[in-house]
Amino acid sequence: KINPDRLWDSLMEMAQIGPGVAGGNNRQTLTDEDAAGRALFQKWCEEAGCSLGLDQMGNMFARREGEDPEALPVYVGSHLDTQPTGGKYDGVLGVLGGLEIIRTLNDLGIKTKHPIVATNFTNEEGTRYAPAMLSSGVFAGIHTQDWAYERQDAEGKSFGDELKRIGWRGEEETGARKMHAFFELHIEQGPILEAENKDIGVVTHGQGLSWTQVTLIGKDSHTGSTPMPMRRNAGLGMARILEKVDEIAWSHAPHAVGAAGHIDVYPNSRNVIPGKVVFTVDFRSPDLSVIEDMEQRLRLDGQTIAQEMGLEISFEKVGGFDPVAFDETCVSAVRSAAERLGYSHMDLISGAGHDACWINRVAPTAMVMCPCVDGLSHNEAEEISREWAKAGADVLLHAVVETAEV
Amino acid sequence: KINPDRLWDSLMEMAQIGPGVAGGNNRQTLTDEDAAGRALFQKWCEEAGCSLGLDQMGNMFARREGEDPEALPVYVGSHLDTQPTGGKYDGVLGVLGGLEIIRTLNDLGIKTKHPIVATNFTNEEGTRYAPAMLSSGVFAGIHTQDWAYERQDAEGKSFGDELKRIGWRGEEETGARKMHAFFELHIEQGPILEAENKDIGVVTHGQGLSWTQVTLIGKDSHTGSTPMPMRRNAGLGMARILEKVDEIAWSHAPHAVGAAGHIDVYPNSRNVIPGKVVFTVDFRSPDLSVIEDMEQRLRLDGQTIAQEMGLEISFEKVGGFDPVAFDETCVSAVRSAAERLGYSHMDLISGAGHDACWINRVAPTAMVMCPCVDGLSHNEAEEISREWAKAGADVLLHAVVETAEV
Ligand SMILES: NC(=O)NCCC(=O)O
Ligand SMILES: NC(=O)NCCC(=O)O
Repeated sequence: KINPDRLWDSLMEMAQIGPGVAGGNNRQTLTDEDAAGRALFQKWCEEAGCSLGLDQMGNMFARREGEDPEALPVYVGSHLDTQPTGGKYDGVLGVLGGLEIIRTLNDLGIKTKHPIVATNFTNEEGTRYAPAMLSSGVFAGIHTQDWAYERQDAEGKSFGDELKRIGWRGEEETGARKMHAFFELHIEQGPILEAENKDIGVVTHGQGLSWTQVTLIGKDSHTGSTPMPMRRNAGLGMARILEKVDEIAWSHAPHAVGAAGHIDVYPNSRNVIPGKVVFTVDFRSPDLSVIEDMEQRLRLDGQTIAQEMGLEISFEKVGGFDPVAFDETCVSAVRSAAERLGYSHMDLISGAGHDACWINRVAPTAMVMCPCVDGLSHNEAEEISREWAKAGADVLLHAVVETAEV
Repeated sequence: KINPDRLWDSLMEMAQIGPGVAGGNNRQTLTDEDAAGRALFQKWCEEAGCSLGLDQMGNMFARREGEDPEALPVYVGSHLDTQPTGGKYDGVLGVLGGLEIIRTLNDLGIKTKHPIVATNFTNEEGTRYAPAMLSSGVFAGIHTQDWAYERQDAEGKSFGDELKRIGWRGEEETGARKMHAFFELHIEQGPILEAENKDIGVVTHGQGLSWTQVTLIGKDSHTGSTPMPMRRNAGLGMARILEKVDEIAWSHAPHAVGAAGHIDVYPNSRNVIPGKVVFTVDFRSPDLSVIEDMEQRLRLDGQTIAQEMGLEISFEKVGGFDPVAFDETCVSAVRSAAERLGYSHMDLISGAGHDACWINRVAPTAMVMCPCVDGLSHNEAEEISREWAKAGADVLLHAVVETAEV
């Protein structure tokens, strides 16, 4: 079993870097805080005797050697970047859980046949640079690296430049590594495990995601002197489309969700009718045909609303992935580890996207989930108990060690 | 008659300062660009033989002496600040129109009994600092200067500090000056004059305004893993309230308008359900009881929507003024000047707020309006013809000279 106090202390120490304003974290990707978090992880990995690899996307790989020099490594990890108002555990638990496994194996003097590699993927959150899971996506061959480098943040700074600026662009070709398997421990970020009173979620599937960026063009004009019938109010158009998004998601309930988290209004002045609004609609479902239906209805209804209001509308798909079925052998390893250790568990579909969803395309993959309080995540108040973290990391340890073969 | 080429050249030269991105201007109040625009106006006024006064709100007063040392001056002006994506004429035409009158009187060697003072009021637009017409409001005793100094921009910089920083905080007590009369030339910013094919609008009234800032508090949470029924989506709440705002304004059509130009969504991340939205509703009508009704319905309907959605809501009135009736003598001076000069004209109610609306509280006041293309304003594409500018400034000249007595 892992050392729960050490794991917890490391979580709390990492949370010192890039503190938020309400007890959580703002350690967004490719910021100075991200660099500081990486340096701390590197230090810990080196202290645990690992050698560090770094690829051209800034993905970090801390390797504990195995006994068979020919055997492919078992990878285990997640991401250290956070939302702008994020929690202390989303991603971090998975990376430091990987490190804790290595520390535990060191303590116990256990050798595995396959090497074990604790991993930190760059820009999982996708706030500063869409799409989410960008670097695991390049690793898995979903996006080209050139395209990823060109992604821009709200200030127009490119991913490639910022990765170089913070000093974490490596030499290694992204995706050149081959994996024996990949495991990711993550908090659920939803309410099911807590409601069902289970310690462990055995993630069999992940729901798919579609991000559509909508641009509405109206006409900037004076809020006082422009008569109502002459207005081309892109803000009002956005409001009507947001209502539709909600309606569309509910029409597939409980097998779909939908909302817009990102909304920018231009010129954003109290006495100017908005001439432009850019917002991103997030639709998700475990069923690909449902996602496709929602996307299509957004485009059709959006067109209709825009036309009625004299607005121009355009749509750009800025992120997405299809629903995922994880590898049955890896999933079984997680389930039987939970069983063996006596933790209560249930099968689960992940509501969020994860690096594991992309890595599943290039290696046998599974995920372990632990509950979080009130299902709350992407919120500084995100919270888990030490017991939940311990259970998750114990199950991760056993699933990884079984797969890496003692 | 005024010199239309000189007026136009000055308009174009001022428009060089703080250029926008699409042919207009971004010369927001208390920016370095505002300071540069003020310096240019000062230079021109001094070249025209005026002495410059500056009060503690940064209001500028360029005085051409009159023949009677006891006579109160006739003030004429508007504002040099612009919207973030504003036009070249909104406000500027009124200030440089005032200067052009002085230049013309100099050319013709005409002496007036009353001094004439070309005026630039600080922060008319109200984008960076709400409310609009802040400094003419302090001048007229509507707001205290201390309160005005404490207004903050989106970055938390205070009006008082920024006024000092750009070097345009004067010594003179704000509002100490007494005015014989005040005249303001302004573009209509609406479509009526152009549609009616009139050169001149004789502004008899101004409609009233109410700005209500609405804050909706929901709960930041994950767009993927938070089930639909558990969401407290402040963005969706904002959308529903914007629909209501539109409905409320239309219910009083054509005697009211309503919209929201300012909308800020937090944390504004694609995969976070908005936990907070702050937006400002702009309602206007020439009828005070209509404004009061709209304000009240916004609060009631907003409460109901918030309650249904599990959101907290609060309202703050961040700006407003009652409908205005301008001074009959001054209005007549404008109307008879247009008549005498042979310009086509009509009486008009101003849809926008103006410094004249506040100054009307402390001095006999009237406004002259000229058309603008397509009624478009608060847009970089705002446009007027040289002929319209000339007609407006000619009428202004005659109304001012009649009031200042030759
Ligand atoms: N786990 C997580 O929050 N990932 C970010 C990508 C997503 O929005 O699902
Ligand atoms: N004229 C003008 O645009 N003034 C700004 C105040 C308002 O919004 O009416």
